[in-house]
Amino acid sequence: MPTSDYDFARWMRGQLAQVEAGLSLWVRADAPAGLGAAMRYAVLDGGKRLRPLLVLAACEAVGGLGQAALRAACAVELIHAYSLVHDDMPCMDNDVLRRGKPTVHVRFGQAQALLAGDALQALAFELLTPEDGVPPAMQARLCRLLAQAAGADGMAGGQAIDLASVGQQLTQDQLRHMHRLKTGALLRASVVMGAACGEPARVAEQALAQYGAAIGLAFQVVDDVLDVTQDSATLGKTAGKDAASDKPTYVSLMGLDAARDHAEALRAEAHAALAASGLADTRALAELADMVVRRSH
Amino acid sequence: MPTSDYDFARWMRGQLAQVEAGLSLWVRADAPAGLGAAMRYAVLDGGKRLRPLLVLAACEAVGGLGQAALRAACAVELIHAYSLVHDDMPCMDNDVLRRGKPTVHVRFGQAQALLAGDALQALAFELLTPEDGVPPAMQARLCRLLAQAAGADGMAGGQAIDLASVGQQLTQDQLRHMHRLKTGALLRASVVMGAACGEPARVAEQALAQYGAAIGLAFQVVDDVLDVTQDSATLGKTAGKDAASDKPTYVSLMGLDAARDHAEALRAEAHAALAASGLADTRALAELADMVVRRSH
Repeated sequence: MPTSDYDFARWMRGQLAQVEAGLSLWVRADAPAGLGAAMRYAVLDGGKRLRPLLVLAACEAVGGLGQAALRAACAVELIHAYSLVHDDMPCMDNDVLRRGKPTVHVRFGQAQALLAGDALQALAFELLTPEDGVPPAMQARLCRLLAQAAGADGMAGGQAIDLASVGQQLTQDQLRHMHRLKTGALLRASVVMGAACGEPARVAEQALAQYGAAIGLAFQVVDDVLDVTQDSATLGKTAGKDAASDKPTYVSLMGLDAARDHAEALRAEAHAALAASGLADTRALAELADMVVRRSH
Repeated sequence: MPTSDYDFARWMRGQLAQVEAGLSLWVRADAPAGLGAAMRYAVLDGGKRLRPLLVLAACEAVGGLGQAALRAACAVELIHAYSLVHDDMPCMDNDVLRRGKPTVHVRFGQAQALLAGDALQALAFELLTPEDGVPPAMQARLCRLLAQAAGADGMAGGQAIDLASVGQQLTQDQLRHMHRLKTGALLRASVVMGAACGEPARVAEQALAQYGAAIGLAFQVVDDVLDVTQDSATLGKTAGKDAASDKPTYVSLMGLDAARDHAEALRAEAHAALAASGLADTRALAELADMVVRRSH
């Protein structure tokens, strides 16, 4: 599909403005005893907002309900943000730098970081279930999709595998399984949730799920590549961490060139899924796939 | 209301059997890399299941949908269980004993405890949103009620106040506000969610919310009393902890006798709310109010 006339940058600016406004509105500063400040610090002013953009682009592609998609977009980002807060804690990755700023536990203490993460997860489900404006059946479905992607069969399960795999020799299949859960589930869910804001044909729904799975995996492959090719300043987080902590990565397993080729193949797979979706306009999704693979941080 | 002919113990055994079966079914052992084991350890074989019993009793009182109530009962218990796991961690209360067993982080390590708590919260919302069997509007409402009770305006917010209050002098109003969020919100939500499994009249709905708020507060007052009057073996957790950590409690603020009287007054308030509800049979709820106040652990 030709994307040359399409002003993706403009589309993205418009969507990002909505997402930032939504997050700033819904993650309230007045939560008790500094909790609101820690939550806002974790969520606002940083982050590529890739997941929200995927939700919004998928919703647009299926002609879905914008109001539902904006809530879903912010909900997914809250889950992502909470996972980073907990993941950075000393008992996990013990990271002190995130998006170029001190991590939440460095800034607010571990206890507050733990609570802020917990409260962000709850808030995600609160966002998905407003009193009105979104049909209840859509609300319930969005909650189900997000809960599945965040929990033991998704992100949290992937993190458990990640923990257990430090210092282990993984096969490529095992590594793929870990990432399919750890980062892939939420990225895929972003696309599927966006689609769930409309009523796409079955073939379109399946194609979008396939697209989501491909870019979900591509994202992690590229992450592994960037970890060895970029410096901390560009990444906004500590570079070279995987190798230092002896974590298996696509680069350590396949080598740098093969990992890059793999990311490109997944990008092509994502584009192919869009082409097979039967949807009229998937330009934003196509651009997002390119962005995932060709990003520098 | 006379409760003499009513076999509450039998009712409770029946309900508890359902709850334990539900939890054992839904908290699956096969979550990856030991995560399932940690989640089950946190949830199964222990706990009074007070919150699930409140959900089920409230549902029964309004003639609600049993299938929805059982899911809601287990979901509330998962939120409670996750909060204990995180609360026990070294960066929070640093407790090593819970329900007479080593706490989750002692047994499985801090990282796994963190993840298990996170995954239990997600699972709670997954339980509330099954593919079928519960009307979508009810699912959405139950998610909303649980998310609000668990998040920054509820449990997590109360914990943040609790953290900030160590070593502080609180007024009784401030202490009540903290507990209304920290433990009260989820107990009240248990009752309100049980009611939301049916379609009670407005007056009944409000009476049940009042009942829930009263026993929510009573629970904490009694907790504070037990902390100074019982030993660790009876409590199944470390006794005398509040005083040792210089936390304000009802006992430290009001004295032991006044705290006991206060708990009794709240019990009476709960009974009065039931009497005003216009519901035909609130015997289980009445017994649960008595149980909350007269428990020994």
